Amino acid sequence: MLHSVIMAGGIGARFWPLSRRQKPKQLLDLLGEGTLLEQTITRIAPLIPETERWIVTNQEQMRRMQDAIPSLRADRFILEPIGRNTAPAIGLSAVRLLAYDPDAVMVVLPADHRIDHIDEFRTALTTAANMVSDSDILATIGMTPSRPETGYGYIQLDRKAKQPTSGAYWVKTFAEKPNLQTAKLFFESGEFLWNSGIFVWRADVILQQIAEHLPQWHSGLQKIAGALDTPEEAAVTQQVFAALKGISIDYGVMEHAPRVAVVKGEFGWSDVGSWDEVWRLLAQDENGNALRGNALMVKSRRNLILAQNRLIALVDMDDVIVVDAGDAILICPREKSQDVRAVVEALEKNGHDRVL
Amino acid sequence: MLHSVIMAGGIGARFWPLSRRQKPKQLLDLLGEGTLLEQTITRIAPLIPETERWIVTNQEQMRRMQDAIPSLRADRFILEPIGRNTAPAIGLSAVRLLAYDPDAVMVVLPADHRIDHIDEFRTALTTAANMVSDSDILATIGMTPSRPETGYGYIQLDRKAKQPTSGAYWVKTFAEKPNLQTAKLFFESGEFLWNSGIFVWRADVILQQIAEHLPQWHSGLQKIAGALDTPEEAAVTQQVFAALKGISIDYGVMEHAPRVAVVKGEFGWSDVGSWDEVWRLLAQDENGNALRGNALMVKSRRNLILAQNRLIALVDMDDVIVVDAGDAILICPREKSQDVRAVVEALEKNGHDRVL
Repeated sequence: MLHSVIMAGGIGARFWPLSRRQKPKQLLDLLGEGTLLEQTITRIAPLIPETERWIVTNQEQMRRMQDAIPSLRADRFILEPIGRNTAPAIGLSAVRLLAYDPDAVMVVLPADHRIDHIDEFRTALTTAANMVSDSDILATIGMTPSRPETGYGYIQLDRKAKQPTSGAYWVKTFAEKPNLQTAKLFFESGEFLWNSGIFVWRADVILQQIAEHLPQWHSGLQKIAGALDTPEEAAVTQQVFAALKGISIDYGVMEHAPRVAVVKGEFGWSDVGSWDEVWRLLAQDENGNALRGNALMVKSRRNLILAQNRLIALVDMDDVIVVDAGDAILICPREKSQDVRAVVEALEKNGHDRVL
Repeated sequence: MLHSVIMAGGIGARFWPLSRRQKPKQLLDLLGEGTLLEQTITRIAPLIPETERWIVTNQEQMRRMQDAIPSLRADRFILEPIGRNTAPAIGLSAVRLLAYDPDAVMVVLPADHRIDHIDEFRTALTTAANMVSDSDILATIGMTPSRPETGYGYIQLDRKAKQPTSGAYWVKTFAEKPNLQTAKLFFESGEFLWNSGIFVWRADVILQQIAEHLPQWHSGLQKIAGALDTPEEAAVTQQVFAALKGISIDYGVMEHAPRVAVVKGEFGWSDVGSWDEVWRLLAQDENGNALRGNALMVKSRRNLILAQNRLIALVDMDDVIVVDAGDAILICPREKSQDVRAVVEALEKNGHDRVL
């Protein structure tokens, strides 16, 4: 059966001052379309019934998500005791799903992405699910790049090999976020796709690949599997996660696995990774300004202003982000919006808990 | 007798969002030392008794100044019915002073300047007052420049001519705000002083010079003089001002008068003309940031942040002004802080009266 596993453990510090411990990125309505988590659920809803929709997160975030979306079922949350990056979270999910459905096919989705063309997205997921349902293939969804973006990882596909199925290719290599020069080469080659972080595979296959490439992690997961639905489950999970190092599924498994295929998608995907990306996604006026709330632009271009009732007036300012969260305001150049994390770190260091 | 005439008619639109119709620049405490008007009064207080301290302004501003400084005497306000720049305001003051004291010597002072060394300032005023008290000299105070500033007018002094008195020079020319190249020449020549806009002269002498160089304005002033202390005074003043064009005393009189002398001052003067100047005058931390209120700087330098309780966080921003007035926030590059007026114009045009 097809299951969705939404990865929703993060805070999204790059979206401070709107993102807070109490209000993580996936619960923000950054684009005026509803929260990113709701959008993610809505996108998969026609493919996967409610009983097969899982969310991986921690206890604290679970409570906040249930407050925000009361229809979420408590028994479909998979709780990480500690954040250990994607490989342990996915492994834990696979263990849980296998106990419930030995034939489980998992669609692993970040909670905080945006997609323009939902029908094409669903088609790509279906293609991937059909491809893996009866095989040992690990499938990813790769996006045809629309620009030489340096903020994403890339997947090189193997054009010469026979396609595993129509719309999919065997993967030659994974490449980390490139510098601009490399990104341009990737973009122009036509052989590279953006790595969306969306994966589709059988739960038993991914566990087997974790056993192969991350044996230490696999033995921890086996311990958890043995304690499932016993009074020791929480304690064992806690103990195993505490002892494991964090590692991403890309780095830990995908780059080493022998049979990895990518379904090529063109559905207008974004990971909504920074305020700059929000500026790109929002409607801009004739001066390139994306404005919300009470904003006044004088000789100012290509800015993102998320204001409230209080007027925010810019004079002679170009390419900046201004976000007013009521109790805190961020001002940052658009091109440096990846650095917003640094504010959160500085606030933590200086004990400004009130705005974290 | 020595009289002070404080010019206090303006709003100081360049200090929006702190300056408002209800709260003009001279009533702001921009530097944490008290309001600029109070500072101006305090500086002259030991030289000029309260009964000889006059303020030129309009009806509306008079009320606000009295609210802010209750000790100001209503009968020492000289009211312009309409703003017509400095020549008519000074002419009106001379007419009023002469009716009160035929030997009046006027010290004309902008309400909104800052001075570091008050004793030296007082010495310069006394030098000027002594020089003009019994002569037809128009005296100005000129400041030894500390940098090639393009925001000030300059006065060229005549080094060859015999000095009118110790500490003073005859003036060769007045120069408007120069471009940077010219400002550098002025600065390096040693012959140029900054024009402070502080003037000292006998009331009868300035009126005579207005008669000479601005005859139309003078005949208007004569009409006002004839109506002083009659029931027609306000109506005549209104009528005369309505019919006159605005003109500055520098352009209308000083540049043409035959006997103009400048007293050279070195008392750390600033006209506090822009937010950039406020940044320059305030204490800066080791990164060049001048911060008030709740501000957090991450990799950000040489900024002026006037925050309140709400946190203002900058990341990777250099050389900007951020002013939070509660209901409105300004963000502007320091070097463009002269353009803040443009916000006020845009707000007027768009009917944002709430924040004007």
